[in-house]
Amino acid sequence: MTPRGRRPAGGDTRGAIAAAAREEFADRGYDGTSMRAVARRAGVDPALVHHYFDGKPALFAAAMDLPVSPSALVAGILEGDPACLGERLAQTFLRAWDDPANTPHIVAMLRAGMTHDAAGRMLREFLTTEVFGPVARAARPDDDPSVPLRAGLAAAQMIGLATLRYAVPHPPVADAPADEVARRVGPVLQQHLTE
Amino acid sequence: MTPRGRRPAGGDTRGAIAAAAREEFADRGYDGTSMRAVARRAGVDPALVHHYFDGKPALFAAAMDLPVSPSALVAGILEGDPACLGERLAQTFLRAWDDPANTPHIVAMLRAGMTHDAAGRMLREFLTTEVFGPVARAARPDDDPSVPLRAGLAAAQMIGLATLRYAVPHPPVADAPADEVARRVGPVLQQHLTE
Repeated sequence: MTPRGRRPAGGDTRGAIAAAAREEFADRGYDGTSMRAVARRAGVDPALVHHYFDGKPALFAAAMDLPVSPSALVAGILEGDPACLGERLAQTFLRAWDDPANTPHIVAMLRAGMTHDAAGRMLREFLTTEVFGPVARAARPDDDPSVPLRAGLAAAQMIGLATLRYAVPHPPVADAPADEVARRVGPVLQQHLTE
Repeated sequence: MTPRGRRPAGGDTRGAIAAAAREEFADRGYDGTSMRAVARRAGVDPALVHHYFDGKPALFAAAMDLPVSPSALVAGILEGDPACLGERLAQTFLRAWDDPANTPHIVAMLRAGMTHDAAGRMLREFLTTEVFGPVARAARPDDDPSVPLRAGLAAAQMIGLATLRYAVPHPPVADAPADEVARRVGPVLQQHLTE
């Protein structure tokens, strides 16, 4: 079916695509959403979605109005010594989350994820597919069947940390310097990821 | 001020005290609530509160309608080899939470804590004062200033685990056997608690 005649007029094609992506992610989760399906929902040619967004993670970041692209952060985490993956993971995310421009987004996403099934599914799929999965795979042999559980438990540590640092601020966790938290959480993530 | 004349008539004095405790915990948090203040709010003599409830943790468990008393669990965790504290902590809580009688309470508390400031404060104070604080203190020298942060980060791991196992079920974490999860999370808690 050609979507001709439904392409939004005027200049906000990019915004219309992001809005369609928001609905598609909410309906189908992160893993079940394709760039093609978003194009169909927005009534535009798939090439246009690829023109505006450099892949599904970028589309997700725009749909969720994230001020920072998680994929760029993950690329930085994967570079460098594999023995320090955990510490880079903790440091990178603490630095991004501590930025006052980002903290309210983190809190809103945690709350939505905890109270709305669709938001929760979308978030956990995004986090494991685009963030913790790639990091765990980089740390382990290709055929290691424990990778999904390792990635999930590392994600659990970071979700709990975000909860007690931002959403339900617990002073010892919320007020500790980011470097000290990263120094303590880094080796723990490393253990989850590599044993 | 003597609360005479306000003691609830009939058989449900215990229930009236639990209801007063629920309000007091919500208003003042866990740490700010005393057995005496609950007695005052319930209009009963403080001795009666102590008669029905063996300390503040038991009163909290009744007020929150918890089917299991966390203090009894913590006492079991503290017994035995300190080198296995983390694993006993993970095992004990996974066993309690996995019980179908308890899981809905865990999910309800996580959701309430994430979306209502008073519930969040009450929960994080209870968890750190009665569960993770005592365990961290047992693992470290008395004067170690890192105990509150250690306890907080261990709590973060368990809150994130409860989130991905029950509230926002992520299959690799939700479907893994409790023993395997405890075997992986135990050493991580041990590292938070003892380095």
